[in-house]
Amino acid sequence: ARVMYDFAAEPGNNELTVSEGEIITITNPDVGGGWLEGRNSKGERGLVPTDYVEILPNDGKDPFSCGNSVADQAFLDSLSASSAQANSSAANSSQVSSGNDPWSAWSSSKSGNWDSTDGWGAKPEGAAAQRSTSNNWDTAFGHPQAYQGPFPGFAKPGMEQYLLAKQLAKPKEKIPIIVGDYGPMWVYPTSTFDCVVADPRKGSKMYGLKSYIEYQLTPTNTNRSVNHRYKHFDWLYERLLVKFGSAIPIPSLPDKQVTGRFEEEFIKMRMERLQAWVTRMCRHPVVSESEVFQQFLNFRDEKEWKTGKRKAEKDELVGVMIFSTMEPEAPDLDLLEIEQKCDAVGKFTKAMDDGVKELLTVGQEHWKRCTGPLPKEYQKIGKALQSLATVFSSSGYQGETDLNAAITEAGKTYEEIAGLVAEQPKKDLHFLMECNHEYKGFLGCFPDIIGAHKAAIEKVKESDKLVATSKITPQDKQNMVKRVGTMSYALQAEMNHFHSNRIYDYNSVIRLYLEQQVQFYETIAEKLRQALGRFPVM
Amino acid sequence: ARVMYDFAAEPGNNELTVSEGEIITITNPDVGGGWLEGRNSKGERGLVPTDYVEILPNDGKDPFSCGNSVADQAFLDSLSASSAQANSSAANSSQVSSGNDPWSAWSSSKSGNWDSTDGWGAKPEGAAAQRSTSNNWDTAFGHPQAYQGPFPGFAKPGMEQYLLAKQLAKPKEKIPIIVGDYGPMWVYPTSTFDCVVADPRKGSKMYGLKSYIEYQLTPTNTNRSVNHRYKHFDWLYERLLVKFGSAIPIPSLPDKQVTGRFEEEFIKMRMERLQAWVTRMCRHPVVSESEVFQQFLNFRDEKEWKTGKRKAEKDELVGVMIFSTMEPEAPDLDLLEIEQKCDAVGKFTKAMDDGVKELLTVGQEHWKRCTGPLPKEYQKIGKALQSLATVFSSSGYQGETDLNAAITEAGKTYEEIAGLVAEQPKKDLHFLMECNHEYKGFLGCFPDIIGAHKAAIEKVKESDKLVATSKITPQDKQNMVKRVGTMSYALQAEMNHFHSNRIYDYNSVIRLYLEQQVQFYETIAEKLRQALGRFPVM
Repeated sequence: ARVMYDFAAEPGNNELTVSEGEIITITNPDVGGGWLEGRNSKGERGLVPTDYVEILPNDGKDPFSCGNSVADQAFLDSLSASSAQANSSAANSSQVSSGNDPWSAWSSSKSGNWDSTDGWGAKPEGAAAQRSTSNNWDTAFGHPQAYQGPFPGFAKPGMEQYLLAKQLAKPKEKIPIIVGDYGPMWVYPTSTFDCVVADPRKGSKMYGLKSYIEYQLTPTNTNRSVNHRYKHFDWLYERLLVKFGSAIPIPSLPDKQVTGRFEEEFIKMRMERLQAWVTRMCRHPVVSESEVFQQFLNFRDEKEWKTGKRKAEKDELVGVMIFSTMEPEAPDLDLLEIEQKCDAVGKFTKAMDDGVKELLTVGQEHWKRCTGPLPKEYQKIGKALQSLATVFSSSGYQGETDLNAAITEAGKTYEEIAGLVAEQPKKDLHFLMECNHEYKGFLGCFPDIIGAHKAAIEKVKESDKLVATSKITPQDKQNMVKRVGTMSYALQAEMNHFHSNRIYDYNSVIRLYLEQQVQFYETIAEKLRQALGRFPVM
Repeated sequence: ARVMYDFAAEPGNNELTVSEGEIITITNPDVGGGWLEGRNSKGERGLVPTDYVEILPNDGKDPFSCGNSVADQAFLDSLSASSAQANSSAANSSQVSSGNDPWSAWSSSKSGNWDSTDGWGAKPEGAAAQRSTSNNWDTAFGHPQAYQGPFPGFAKPGMEQYLLAKQLAKPKEKIPIIVGDYGPMWVYPTSTFDCVVADPRKGSKMYGLKSYIEYQLTPTNTNRSVNHRYKHFDWLYERLLVKFGSAIPIPSLPDKQVTGRFEEEFIKMRMERLQAWVTRMCRHPVVSESEVFQQFLNFRDEKEWKTGKRKAEKDELVGVMIFSTMEPEAPDLDLLEIEQKCDAVGKFTKAMDDGVKELLTVGQEHWKRCTGPLPKEYQKIGKALQSLATVFSSSGYQGETDLNAAITEAGKTYEEIAGLVAEQPKKDLHFLMECNHEYKGFLGCFPDIIGAHKAAIEKVKESDKLVATSKITPQDKQNMVKRVGTMSYALQAEMNHFHSNRIYDYNSVIRLYLEQQVQFYETIAEKLRQALGRFPVM
């Protein structure tokens, strides 16, 4: 196989350092977790990320390529024009394996923070982008552990199946929708819980061959901890996306990371983001109550975890079929109204996405300035003042000791200010950025959600023709309208949940930002006032 | 003549726009004030700055080139090696006609301030630099009004004349030096005065052909105003330089300016700097009491001005001969001590020059950031917040009016902060920069002063040989030592004047800077606190 990107081995972790363009022999195409074992021309063996190598034609049928399967592609192709459009945006939303990763800016924007962790975010994304454009060779093989493509559940059970099924499944897990003061809403559980992600520890498997970081998750309602690796979070994310992705925005996880995975600062940042993600899921009345999520947090042993995992993977109430579990206690809706509601959501989420991205761009620029050139400049001012005081002290002139001491202090104050300026973004801008990144993640899911709704609406619109040609009965059509109405209620309920969270989150985070900024400027003013106080009055 | 630099005519001022490389015909080689009248190939006539054109061989003996005359060069060449070195640095110090203009950074550093006044400082300097390297053709002619070269008085009366003259002139204007608590010092006049530069007005001459700006100068002791153009200041500067330049640092004037001379902001800035320059001169006990300076401020009519001018130009107590007017009431000094004092001054002024330049560089960088990218960034943050609030307002969700109003206000606050940031340098950094530029001007004079002193010391060192070969008498030598001692007392007196001013000036300007900075940060903190107060508590 040919190496596509430089990879530096993590010391003591059985990895192999390889360079772009290098040819290595695959000795084990899949040791799990996105790694393969290879041997370089010097005969050195070690682990290399699967994403970093390109299989050459003579590599044979190594079954370790990732990406969308032929089958998935076929499902996509079989959809009608409008739903194809919806699904192509759905394909884009499989953020983990796509170059359009909505969190890409998250990682790149934090690069100022992560200068030390070489290539953080950049390479894996590059690899992902590369992979998604080289689908042709990917599609021939199927990675057993890889994500099987965008919304297989959406394509498999299919929109028509949901809209036209004679009888909907009567699942145990019903998702109620009620109409409250603000319109349709999910039913919030009487007791809520959060989950604390903590205590990242290095673990290993394969007799110490591979190391990983394991996080401790403690739901506040049970106070009983379980351990999970990043790849388990990733599994959960995929299951939630498959199950709820047509109705509820499931923001993707923080980026996959290959290099620098064991660096303390990276682990801390990833944990913070996993915490934010889990908290989001806990806050959601539908997701938090779902069996797959509960099982993720509450399994008692390895066996229970494996069983739960298998069960979740076999769940058929996924994709648009999720709407079959919803029973709005509300009057039927008119198609025009449904369409208008859907368009309004599309318009709002698009506009907010633009706004959030703008704020992120500006914030990133500001972050760079605050941690780069600005403190350097304050430091230079500080040093220049101190140098001048040193020169002045060499004058041999009497009676300027106080002045020179004061100038020196003023210089030191500017050096302190340099430090304050450089540290400040971590205290305020960081949280504003994290919040906006989270929302960018949410908003990136809406094209798929809107797409699913629009596809359903299109199907209903086409249905008159089908009734006329007796392909479906008028009763079928009536069912379709009712079911699109259910989707609309779900969308409205989700938007109301989204808005109330948004208002709370932005109020909190901007308040925090302003509070910290006030303190920051006050601290600087106070330091300068002290420096000023040292100057002699002449 | 060939045009060397682009020149854009000031509208309504009889000027001619010319481009680099253009060939024009000189119709009047000297209309005065550094202007010539020319005609371009289209037959258009108008005024062009003399410095902007290069005389071509076939231009004939147009008597309007500037620069050092052959005679001056001959004087320089006739000096001994060490004094030649001293004089070559003296030549460099004729800042108006040299590329080493110590105020060049003054103008370039203020370019952030003067972006609108195209080419401020840059072109005239370029022209000057060009001229000083093209001396060969310059030397053939002599401009009647042009400065006649570096320290003609220094070269003409000469170091040897001062050191060896049998009898020193007994001038009316004696410059006393006494020994005070801080060592040798000038005698400060019992009443001091300042001079207010104000009321710049456009005047014209040559029947309205040429316009200029005239400033009103009002000495505080007489309260009687006189008017002066920039070129008069320039004349005064040259006279002071010629007369006192070996003993007292005479900082050069703000740069000559060709383009944008009539723009309001330029006039204001030039006036501010002329004010600072005149105040400096008024503060100096020797300069302020000199006839040439007094006459500049107190002439009663045009005739008295012209007479005074002629008299000053004929003054022979210039260059090192200025020391012949000084009579220190102090014991004779030992040559070794003289040399050590001189070296100490050289070392200090060099170190301070470095320190000042460093602060200027840093300040200039900071100025650019504060007036350029930083406020733009705050503005972007402000706009991004306001956009977000606008999007939020379109959600259709109830009960977020207060939040959106608060976010909008926070955004506006950041736009206000942008304005504060951009305006702040004018309130604090400006004064710190101006003060340092002034000192850079002073310090740039010291190489010449030190050079004159070192040259004198060398002469004394050589004198034993001259005594041995009976070229001079032992009495001559004794006189020489005494006179170098006088120079040393003058240097010490000047340094004590310099230091006491320096301490006062830097204390004042750094205090001012810090006061303004404190206010600035407090204002920002207060504005943000107000913005924060508008957020609803949830």
